[in-house]
Amino acid sequence: MKFYDCSTAPSPRRVRMFIAEKGLDIPVVQVDLRSGEQMSDAFRAVNPHCTVPVLELDDGTTLLDSNSISLFLDETYPEPNLMGRDPKEKAVIAGWNRMAEWDGIAAGAEALRNHAKGMKGRAITGPVNYEQIPELAERGNKRATHFLEELNDRFAESEFLAGDRFTIADITAVIAVDFYKWIKVEIADEQTALRHWYDQVAARPGYVD
Amino acid sequence: MKFYDCSTAPSPRRVRMFIAEKGLDIPVVQVDLRSGEQMSDAFRAVNPHCTVPVLELDDGTTLLDSNSISLFLDETYPEPNLMGRDPKEKAVIAGWNRMAEWDGIAAGAEALRNHAKGMKGRAITGPVNYEQIPELAERGNKRATHFLEELNDRFAESEFLAGDRFTIADITAVIAVDFYKWIKVEIADEQTALRHWYDQVAARPGYVD
Repeated sequence: MKFYDCSTAPSPRRVRMFIAEKGLDIPVVQVDLRSGEQMSDAFRAVNPHCTVPVLELDDGTTLLDSNSISLFLDETYPEPNLMGRDPKEKAVIAGWNRMAEWDGIAAGAEALRNHAKGMKGRAITGPVNYEQIPELAERGNKRATHFLEELNDRFAESEFLAGDRFTIADITAVIAVDFYKWIKVEIADEQTALRHWYDQVAARPGYVD
Repeated sequence: MKFYDCSTAPSPRRVRMFIAEKGLDIPVVQVDLRSGEQMSDAFRAVNPHCTVPVLELDDGTTLLDSNSISLFLDETYPEPNLMGRDPKEKAVIAGWNRMAEWDGIAAGAEALRNHAKGMKGRAITGPVNYEQIPELAERGNKRATHFLEELNDRFAESEFLAGDRFTIADITAVIAVDFYKWIKVEIADEQTALRHWYDQVAARPGYVD
């Protein structure tokens, strides 16, 4: 296997943390997103969608997003389990993971990519250039703020996002929270349940940069 | 089990088709999105995110999005399999399904919800009201057009979206294509590979409205 990573980006970090939690050792190829290496012919041959993470399997099959990669790894290396052991648990974890991705990471991406000077004309990842929409950056900020409120409410009643144990949903959520530092949306002092969860997750050996 | 559905909306239709392909018989509760029933106190008690589909299990657990529901059903009723039988196949199908959701359905939603008069102030599903952004509607249209091109390229080399058999990824993609009729983005005459796949999928008994 080969893992195409970029040490400065939140999406491949989801895979980095997943691999670290699993205790796996997978060879890494760094792709420099800041210099636009993902748009090179060499990388397009690996992933025509021009995004990381990518996991290349030994038979040449490529998996092109963090959820698919995580699913493959969780099914191939079952312990410690991060995505559920029975149909109900798998579905519940998938639901919370999706919430952390759509309401969490996607909101941060909306805010950052439609605002940052270095991302002009690059409001969406991938091979097509889309112009920034300033109103969308504002909306992303509002959604990010709302996501932290949702998380705080959830952690007031549940130790981890999907229930009483650490799962992939916590990885996705903590990466969303960290990502929000770039858009200056931070955990509020009164969000004590969220802070408590965050400190717990950030203290794990699997919490890697 | 109980399936909260809305017969006029694309997202719950993903579950309707999945259930039909599986040949399952699950009691249905209709939620009238057009009259705003999803925002009622009664429905908020089922799903505080105010969206359909929802699958309520017999123990009261609720699954709140079509992917989680499909995962539960595929793992509980294995035949016919729609989401993969081994780690690699599961991951590959999940990847294509995700592409059909993010690049496909999400593009249509962006275009429609930021433009339709009846969706003023409702640019995103869920409990929070977000204003429409006209530029985002335009971008959604462009992305939808691009998605059909991507599909056509894919079907020039593969019989179904995730490979040589029908899977959940085809359900998601065909619903995106149908959804685009609302935003007047249609299969072009020259997209013959896409048209061939579409006709095959639309002829299946599981292709339900």
